[in-house]
Amino acid sequence: MRKIEHIGIAVADLEKSNELFARLLGKTLFKTEIVEGEGVQTSFFQVGETKVELLQATRTDSPIAKYLEKKAEGVHHIAFDVEDINAEVIRLKKAGFEILNETPKQGADNKLVVFLHPRSTNGVLVELCQEI
Amino acid sequence: MRKIEHIGIAVADLEKSNELFARLLGKTLFKTEIVEGEGVQTSFFQVGETKVELLQATRTDSPIAKYLEKKAEGVHHIAFDVEDINAEVIRLKKAGFEILNETPKQGADNKLVVFLHPRSTNGVLVELCQEI
Repeated sequence: MRKIEHIGIAVADLEKSNELFARLLGKTLFKTEIVEGEGVQTSFFQVGETKVELLQATRTDSPIAKYLEKKAEGVHHIAFDVEDINAEVIRLKKAGFEILNETPKQGADNKLVVFLHPRSTNGVLVELCQEI
Repeated sequence: MRKIEHIGIAVADLEKSNELFARLLGKTLFKTEIVEGEGVQTSFFQVGETKVELLQATRTDSPIAKYLEKKAEGVHHIAFDVEDINAEVIRLKKAGFEILNETPKQGADNKLVVFLHPRSTNGVLVELCQEI
């Protein structure tokens, strides 16, 4: 894993949170994007080599809607940049981690993504990202 | 804010988690440290320009012990590197954020640190870090 690609934060009201994080970080967001497959609308802020990604649900069966229902606004996942996502899936599976989707899927920001179940990673929802 | 300095993860059993994160990240930790003032024992892994910091309580009144009691293992805080921590405290206070300690205190890894209350930051416990 080469770097932290982004930190995903679940929010209830993206417009409000865009303004809040701009104020907090002293930066303006550089991109918003809707990921239909995941039912999310996202905003990105660049902080050094890492991004802060805000995530708002676009429908009630979105993973983010379910997360907010069970938990609360806050850090949702940590994404690591990897060179070869398929090789990392094989390595991590062998190392005993629980892979949520072994076949990488299309994520936001032009990435192939794979998630690891938080019960195998100390409660942290881990995402692997490979630039397409 | 110049970069994500580290991501703090609350763990129940540091020895077990050190092994888990070494396997996950494919790296060995580069430092362990006890911060008496905070009642924590920490381990650090370098990932690009950011660190992953694992935090285990060393006593029952430690913030990490209380966190694990109320919540569960997982992401505890996000720390941002700042150039001038006192100037950032003034800026963020003016911008409406709730500062937990206006006078920076000594944190792990030779840093002055200030925390922002998560209720003013979308549920994210934000730490500001300035290298001493």
